[in-house]
Amino acid sequence: MAQGYSSPDQAQEESDRGLADAALRVADLLVQRGETLATAESCTGGWIAKLLTDIAGSSAWFEGGAVTYSNSLKQKLLGVGSATLDRHGAVSRETAIEMVAGALNRFDTAIAVAVTGIAGPTGGTRDKPVGTVWIGWQRRGSDALVEGFRFDGDREAVRRQTAAAALRGIVKILTR
Amino acid sequence: MAQGYSSPDQAQEESDRGLADAALRVADLLVQRGETLATAESCTGGWIAKLLTDIAGSSAWFEGGAVTYSNSLKQKLLGVGSATLDRHGAVSRETAIEMVAGALNRFDTAIAVAVTGIAGPTGGTRDKPVGTVWIGWQRRGSDALVEGFRFDGDREAVRRQTAAAALRGIVKILTR
Repeated sequence: MAQGYSSPDQAQEESDRGLADAALRVADLLVQRGETLATAESCTGGWIAKLLTDIAGSSAWFEGGAVTYSNSLKQKLLGVGSATLDRHGAVSRETAIEMVAGALNRFDTAIAVAVTGIAGPTGGTRDKPVGTVWIGWQRRGSDALVEGFRFDGDREAVRRQTAAAALRGIVKILTR
Repeated sequence: MAQGYSSPDQAQEESDRGLADAALRVADLLVQRGETLATAESCTGGWIAKLLTDIAGSSAWFEGGAVTYSNSLKQKLLGVGSATLDRHGAVSRETAIEMVAGALNRFDTAIAVAVTGIAGPTGGTRDKPVGTVWIGWQRRGSDALVEGFRFDGDREAVRRQTAAAALRGIVKILTR
């Protein structure tokens, strides 16, 4: 699990401008490659989709997304197993993997990204404090990439860092 | 169809602060009434869900949402009829009504809101210029409310006014 940190570069990446730039980078790569993207968001609650659809012409490569805030929606909409939620919790590597696979299936895109985390201020536990976030990325036909984070800061900061990391990961999956 | 306009009050309502205040008002009312909300967003692309989940504790009353950017997702995820899309288009009173009914069904909440519109800069036609937006609101067991708008301004302005109008309508449906 990578630790959240705040170097000057990181802070810049998480500014409104930094997030917009990252979304543009994703857009350029998807257009170049003729590929499509879907999102499945829990703790960011639609922010990643919002950033992507801020971009004119995004309908060419953004299919849509799910904001699955409740556990029951994670199951119904994305097919996350109830055993997975019971055993590992909604904020876990396992749930992130099932969410991103579910998004690929449900939205029928080439690439998907899924995020689940504890944005706070409540909901944290000793094992999973506020700022715990899991992100999954998957390209159809490949295994999911998944990464865990412990971000510092308040609800806004955690959500902001999550969106930045999610976009950064999409770029990574598109350029590797 | 109501016309978009920009009085000083309107501009304030559409500022970041205005949108956050409107989302807080929605949150307070839902908490008071013990009711739950779902969103179905096309042109706002997740912005409404993002505004609602900016609020700490939103998991108590926000179930989740769909960002159905493509027509096929409007059908698959929300059950919008292909005949409706063919006959009236994705940006129409009829599609907004089917989207909000689909969101209520799919997300199993007391209240739902759905938006579909042309944010621009492309996609406008003579009949449906950029800024044409339809919003539907529905309380389970009641008929949908639906309203059409012609908002002025660029993509950001259209999306911003759409989010503000959607939140304003949720307040209306919760207080009538």
